[in-house]
Amino acid sequence: MASTSARRRTAVSKPDDAPAWLASDRERLDLKLWVRLLACAHAAEQRVKTRIKDQFGINQTQFNLMSQLDRSPAGIRMGEVARRTVVTGSNVTAVVDDLERRGLVARQNADTDRRATVIKLTPKGRSAFAEMAPVHAEWILELFSELPDSEKRNLVRQLDGLKAAMRATLSTSL
Amino acid sequence: MASTSARRRTAVSKPDDAPAWLASDRERLDLKLWVRLLACAHAAEQRVKTRIKDQFGINQTQFNLMSQLDRSPAGIRMGEVARRTVVTGSNVTAVVDDLERRGLVARQNADTDRRATVIKLTPKGRSAFAEMAPVHAEWILELFSELPDSEKRNLVRQLDGLKAAMRATLSTSL
Repeated sequence: MASTSARRRTAVSKPDDAPAWLASDRERLDLKLWVRLLACAHAAEQRVKTRIKDQFGINQTQFNLMSQLDRSPAGIRMGEVARRTVVTGSNVTAVVDDLERRGLVARQNADTDRRATVIKLTPKGRSAFAEMAPVHAEWILELFSELPDSEKRNLVRQLDGLKAAMRATLSTSL
Repeated sequence: MASTSARRRTAVSKPDDAPAWLASDRERLDLKLWVRLLACAHAAEQRVKTRIKDQFGINQTQFNLMSQLDRSPAGIRMGEVARRTVVTGSNVTAVVDDLERRGLVARQNADTDRRATVIKLTPKGRSAFAEMAPVHAEWILELFSELPDSEKRNLVRQLDGLKAAMRATLSTSL
């Protein structure tokens, strides 16, 4: 493990003649950013996640899927659903099965490829989401209500920069 | 649900005479920030989470707990461990049991209160963490390596502002 660490350490653009404090300073800045980013996201998500469960009776993954289906009237292929929800580590089949049991989504054969399964919102699902979406948006507004709009705009721009920077180093897509 | 939405909408500091587009514009900005924040955090976390599991053989919650224990030589009370790891939704007892089985942490009675249980790193756990920490730090450095330091500093400052702003609206602490 020590040799892996040493190899990686060399790989991270630090000139050979740089003073030792430079690497440690850089490490501190990066770890600080890492901790802040995760703490903010977790705090925000935790609050909204609990409210989704309590007030809508579905979980966050299911709400996010309904939101994506609401923007995709032609439906989303099952394989694509799996790809999009992979970050949450949820069992995609269970997520879709449960929404189907509630009559909120339906599985259909794809128009273009009869072997592929496509998920769509049912009319009941569409109207349920139309009621949930503005409530959900209000929670987000409330959560960020103490931050000035100028700082929100700055943060969006900065996070876009971070996303692009991570894309350049990540093999997995954002 | 519609009436809840209407009530909340009124509560969000929008002057009565404001044009309708103002609320919708604000909603768009807030939702954009929400999506960016979660997408960045998830992408970053997913990559590192997988590496922790693959290379250290423990999960992210266990790594984070060992990191906290490394900074707390006197140990952390079981109740405090539960509070700190609650955001991940993990089963705290299972997390600690598994680390204890591997000989990385030990349960002890608290010095100040014999009824309270305190978790500490064992010497083996401390030396294992000393090997993991620099490797983990290199992953973070690699992840953020394409972002200029000036933007990292800006982001840290902005996220601190967001954290403070959310604290002002959240009853749960960050």
